[in-house]
Amino acid sequence: MAEYQAPLRDMRFVLNEVFEANKLWASLAGTQDTIDPETAEAILEEAGKITASLIAPLSREGDEEGCTWHEAGVKTPTGYKDAYKTFIEGGWCGLSGNADYEGMGMPKMLGAQYEEMLYSADISFGLYACLTSGACLAIDAHASEELKTKYLPKMYSGEWAGAMDLTEPHSGTDLGMIRTKAVENGDGSYAITGTKIFITGGEQDLSENIIHLVLAKLPGAPAGSRGISLFLVPRNSVDENNVVGENNNVTCGSIEHKMGIKASATCVMNFDGAQGWLVGEENKGLAAMFTMMNYERLSVGIQGFAAAERSYQNAVEYAKDRIQGRAATGAVQADKEADPIIVHPDVRRMLMTMRAYTEGSRAFSTYVASFLDKAKYSDNAEEKAQADAMVALLTPIAKAYMTDRALDSCIAGQQVFGGHGFIREWGQEQLVRDTRITQIYEGTNGIQSLDLMGRKVVSNGGKLYELFATEVSEFVEKNADNEALQSLIKPLAAALERLSDVTEFVIGAAAEDKNAIGAASVEYLELFGLTAYAYMWARMAVVAEPKVAGDTSGFYAAKLKTANFFFSRLLPRSVSLSETIRSGSDDMMALEVEAF
Amino acid sequence: MAEYQAPLRDMRFVLNEVFEANKLWASLAGTQDTIDPETAEAILEEAGKITASLIAPLSREGDEEGCTWHEAGVKTPTGYKDAYKTFIEGGWCGLSGNADYEGMGMPKMLGAQYEEMLYSADISFGLYACLTSGACLAIDAHASEELKTKYLPKMYSGEWAGAMDLTEPHSGTDLGMIRTKAVENGDGSYAITGTKIFITGGEQDLSENIIHLVLAKLPGAPAGSRGISLFLVPRNSVDENNVVGENNNVTCGSIEHKMGIKASATCVMNFDGAQGWLVGEENKGLAAMFTMMNYERLSVGIQGFAAAERSYQNAVEYAKDRIQGRAATGAVQADKEADPIIVHPDVRRMLMTMRAYTEGSRAFSTYVASFLDKAKYSDNAEEKAQADAMVALLTPIAKAYMTDRALDSCIAGQQVFGGHGFIREWGQEQLVRDTRITQIYEGTNGIQSLDLMGRKVVSNGGKLYELFATEVSEFVEKNADNEALQSLIKPLAAALERLSDVTEFVIGAAAEDKNAIGAASVEYLELFGLTAYAYMWARMAVVAEPKVAGDTSGFYAAKLKTANFFFSRLLPRSVSLSETIRSGSDDMMALEVEAF
Repeated sequence: MAEYQAPLRDMRFVLNEVFEANKLWASLAGTQDTIDPETAEAILEEAGKITASLIAPLSREGDEEGCTWHEAGVKTPTGYKDAYKTFIEGGWCGLSGNADYEGMGMPKMLGAQYEEMLYSADISFGLYACLTSGACLAIDAHASEELKTKYLPKMYSGEWAGAMDLTEPHSGTDLGMIRTKAVENGDGSYAITGTKIFITGGEQDLSENIIHLVLAKLPGAPAGSRGISLFLVPRNSVDENNVVGENNNVTCGSIEHKMGIKASATCVMNFDGAQGWLVGEENKGLAAMFTMMNYERLSVGIQGFAAAERSYQNAVEYAKDRIQGRAATGAVQADKEADPIIVHPDVRRMLMTMRAYTEGSRAFSTYVASFLDKAKYSDNAEEKAQADAMVALLTPIAKAYMTDRALDSCIAGQQVFGGHGFIREWGQEQLVRDTRITQIYEGTNGIQSLDLMGRKVVSNGGKLYELFATEVSEFVEKNADNEALQSLIKPLAAALERLSDVTEFVIGAAAEDKNAIGAASVEYLELFGLTAYAYMWARMAVVAEPKVAGDTSGFYAAKLKTANFFFSRLLPRSVSLSETIRSGSDDMMALEVEAF
Repeated sequence: MAEYQAPLRDMRFVLNEVFEANKLWASLAGTQDTIDPETAEAILEEAGKITASLIAPLSREGDEEGCTWHEAGVKTPTGYKDAYKTFIEGGWCGLSGNADYEGMGMPKMLGAQYEEMLYSADISFGLYACLTSGACLAIDAHASEELKTKYLPKMYSGEWAGAMDLTEPHSGTDLGMIRTKAVENGDGSYAITGTKIFITGGEQDLSENIIHLVLAKLPGAPAGSRGISLFLVPRNSVDENNVVGENNNVTCGSIEHKMGIKASATCVMNFDGAQGWLVGEENKGLAAMFTMMNYERLSVGIQGFAAAERSYQNAVEYAKDRIQGRAATGAVQADKEADPIIVHPDVRRMLMTMRAYTEGSRAFSTYVASFLDKAKYSDNAEEKAQADAMVALLTPIAKAYMTDRALDSCIAGQQVFGGHGFIREWGQEQLVRDTRITQIYEGTNGIQSLDLMGRKVVSNGGKLYELFATEVSEFVEKNADNEALQSLIKPLAAALERLSDVTEFVIGAAAEDKNAIGAASVEYLELFGLTAYAYMWARMAVVAEPKVAGDTSGFYAAKLKTANFFFSRLLPRSVSLSETIRSGSDDMMALEVEAF
């Protein structure tokens, strides 16, 4: 496997040149005092180093060894414990944490780049930190001042980790059915009893304590999802001086044996009258979870393309090194027995496809992060509201489209290796296995599609969609005279029109057919994602094009060529998607259940 | 995991009703005396039983345990040895073998159904038998009478297994570079020396002996692929009485640790002056391999959709059983906490897509097998030649398109399970891992595409393509008045026209641009596959439609509904593929190697 190199040049391009992050941060009330260009650059550099040198080397062996469960707990693979120690000493767990509680207060646009590097190095390792950040977001937004003061600093420092306990054996997508119970102890705390499954980092040997955020039902709570409350439940009790004490009746019953992310412990957690504290209001647990959900979903999307970036780097190295056959246009290494396989169009097709999706994803995730930053750090109500709306609209796309294309990319990166891609030691097949979970957890990609099509588009008659469409239309108009880029701007305009037409079509169909939303959703999300990526590529091209002439590094020329590839070879899929969506739900639902 | 049920009803439909196999077999000189409808039916029934009861139960544990290597050989997982013994006692290894050497002489159309069941049960197990059949085909077609008499009966009986030794560490797709040497011993035999990798079943503990077919170079042989010869090399020497003796300097150096098919031993084989015999002519080894290649490639295609069939069966059972959420149209199980997830359109979409591809693949593989049977068993020179041409044209599609759609299907089947799909005990993730290799070995799917686009289409100016196009056109014309099926016949005609136009476009482009073939090939194969499946679905619909009214089982009605789904939701992709192909090679090849 090639040594991982953080793609800092492209990150800087996206951050500084395309989305002008520094300008944005300087304009936002909540970031103007916490970050400046030098700090951002130093963080990028440092993240690039620590992920490449400390974490990336753990990934292959971590997959082979995996986590092991024993009565007393879970053992992470060799090397994880030491690496985690070094990692938290660098303060990385608190990067995006609230500065009032000893977090670093860095914006998400920067955090997104850091997360990409972390996940490229090793999704399994990254998850331990990611779950802590997610738990901190929920605590920061909804917990009492007392809980925040007690827990956040220790979690930002990484000494204590976080875990999210939602799923139960019979209750995954449909959380309204959970059975875990919470009963008041009379001292302001609650006794939590129940079993949770699929708990990432529910138990491990890295941190001194693990703080669980647990969904449970209070006695007499309303049925379904309106009767769920959120509780903070430390694995080990913590006294008033923050000294970690006895186990709080929180035990790990077993860990799952999985397809991938084997170095990440996926735990069955048993709560047996564990002491917990309410986070947010009674019965508003799901709403409290939603605060962090958009961050987590973006983060999972980033996991996907981060793995694809790693796969791309490996595939490029292999394609330049492996010699096999001759170029169709004549030998390029006539003195050798064969040419490197990168000369073959089909290998190019795979590498260019990976590149177009991965760089597109990097831009898109940064774009979505910019709205998260505006929503969180702006003091302008209108800007905040508009950003909230864009976050709501774009998050399911970021989660599902980025991970779907990431799997495609990792499969392509494996295919470049031929038979060697199937062999574990090369690492390419692990990236396929590790990426596969990103399409499933944090709400399956089917659920993301339903969220987009139903809640975010149809339910408001396309109001949120119009925000996006208007932005893209304005961009198209602004660049209508850009002669050099008409081969990109025109297809972008056509793709947007197609998406707008289909949006209108589904909104109309949904009024008559209750299955219309579900029937259109997956293809609609893909069509939306493809159009959004076309917008990203056009924006990148507009920035790159004037710089090509004065650039000797070749960076901007490569950007333009990859943009052209995206438009000529990948965007055409939007035509078919649109046609498929228009076929409606009839043929999809026609077969009787018994006939399957 | 659901218990595997052989889909005999659909196999009978394809064999007897759509392609009228019995009529064909009765008309062919080489099959009219070996097979009759009762025999065919008995074989189907028996294969369904043995695969479901004997082999399918091995698959999950076989994956967990895997093969292990030790100095003395390779150990297959617990249970494989006993199952293999029972399996070969049933005579299955000789099913399609030459009756002159104690094979059963069954046609490929029937063999294809048997192979599907075998691979649905367990690809790893099936491979041991499959490699033997492949080796037998090459021996039967090219070896001397003496070798045939000595080896074939023992291989058809399964007592001795076969292995194909092609790849070397530096030489995979480009076999012209192999370094294994063959030197005459002076007694009609040769001393073979070299190292081969990725040898499926190169060593195992199932059979008494393993007969290797090894590609090697004779002293002074021409460079490249024109200097390769084929040798039969038994692992253990065999005396004149067929008694198996000492090891013949053929040893297994190690086995690979792979993503999937873990119960299939993938071996590094060392030949250290091993005694071997020439098969076919000197320096014509590749040609001798091609005889069996079409069979093997179809077989690998069948592996793919066989796994998809298994995944489909599991997914249907889960989707009917797992309750989560409510149907959009109102509760269907109001007395329960939730509805089974099969009510949700997105779950339907996944199941229907799997169904449409898998049944389409079953039809297509049987269709291709019918040409293999005509080519092998007809005594009519024209019929033979035409069938040979169709085999040449359709085999790369059968291998690549069936396995590509199989991976899609297995991923969908895993997705239906949500988080449980990622957990090994459910078996769905194993099917993804096992299927993945089918896109890689026996010539990667990229190589299949190049074979189709370059050798089978462009090199003869579309002559072979015309055979297919004419057959489909005639079908369209014949059914032009079928009022009930116009929603299928018209899109089929349009898809064919699109494919014909693109074929012409690429033939034209290839005259000017040496990269045109490679740039178009993968999307062209997909477009061709999609069109061929449209033809299959239309043929199935034409047979099913008149039978719907008189049928109480629902089989024919389900066929029509699945056909409608294929046409409205899957076929539209052909529009985009055509557009992508027309973008040519420029954007694909524009980026300089250094810029990657």
